[in-house]
Amino acid sequence: MNLTHIEHIGIAVKNLDEAIPYYETILGLKCYAIEEVADQKVKTAFFKVGQTKLELLEPTDANSPVAKFIEKRGEGIHHLAFAVEGVEKALQEVSDKGVRLIDKIPRPGAEGLNIAFLHPKSTFGVLTELCEKK
Amino acid sequence: MNLTHIEHIGIAVKNLDEAIPYYETILGLKCYAIEEVADQKVKTAFFKVGQTKLELLEPTDANSPVAKFIEKRGEGIHHLAFAVEGVEKALQEVSDKGVRLIDKIPRPGAEGLNIAFLHPKSTFGVLTELCEKK
Repeated sequence: MNLTHIEHIGIAVKNLDEAIPYYETILGLKCYAIEEVADQKVKTAFFKVGQTKLELLEPTDANSPVAKFIEKRGEGIHHLAFAVEGVEKALQEVSDKGVRLIDKIPRPGAEGLNIAFLHPKSTFGVLTELCEKK
Repeated sequence: MNLTHIEHIGIAVKNLDEAIPYYETILGLKCYAIEEVADQKVKTAFFKVGQTKLELLEPTDANSPVAKFIEKRGEGIHHLAFAVEGVEKALQEVSDKGVRLIDKIPRPGAEGLNIAFLHPKSTFGVLTELCEKK
């Protein structure tokens, strides 16, 4: 498997309107896109730092995974996404090695990516996403 | 403030000897350094993915911050470190804007960096590190 870089870091926040000014005014980053991902019941805001994006995630539904994450652990880093060449093959490879998958086949994510999550029980607690540009 | 890239992502693990083979065998990364940081009571293992390092953190003391993090939340992503040009000036700048600092002045971290942490209460739950090569 060839992981080329950290594609993005997902960060759970209660409210984008409150969090975006922190990233812009304090850290000096620029929010370049806001996108709703209905499938994951989140509204996302994107920033770029070098090769990597920060993806803020605000839940749009109280029963969404991100809402439950915030309820249990508070706001904070939610997942880590690696860019990979050949996401389907990579999924098969990690599955063959015994990693539990959340997504058995890739599905559409924000920013036109094909994405799939590995289960944190198999990844030492890190909710891990593999993704590839379509 | 000029954040150039994600310098590293800190990941808390109970045991490096168990976690390193996951990163090497499953994700195909290479552990290129192991270093003890006495100051932070951790043993660290480093991997590189594009511009960014993954820094696994195993606590060396049951009363260390990383041990307490694992006790409370389990293994997982612990902190996010941005590379910045001029870490002292950047600290002053965020402090002036009302951000609570864990480190008022930079201190030596792993890999010969000058580092300082911002308090997660001021950063929407993300334990945030600013760092710069000495």
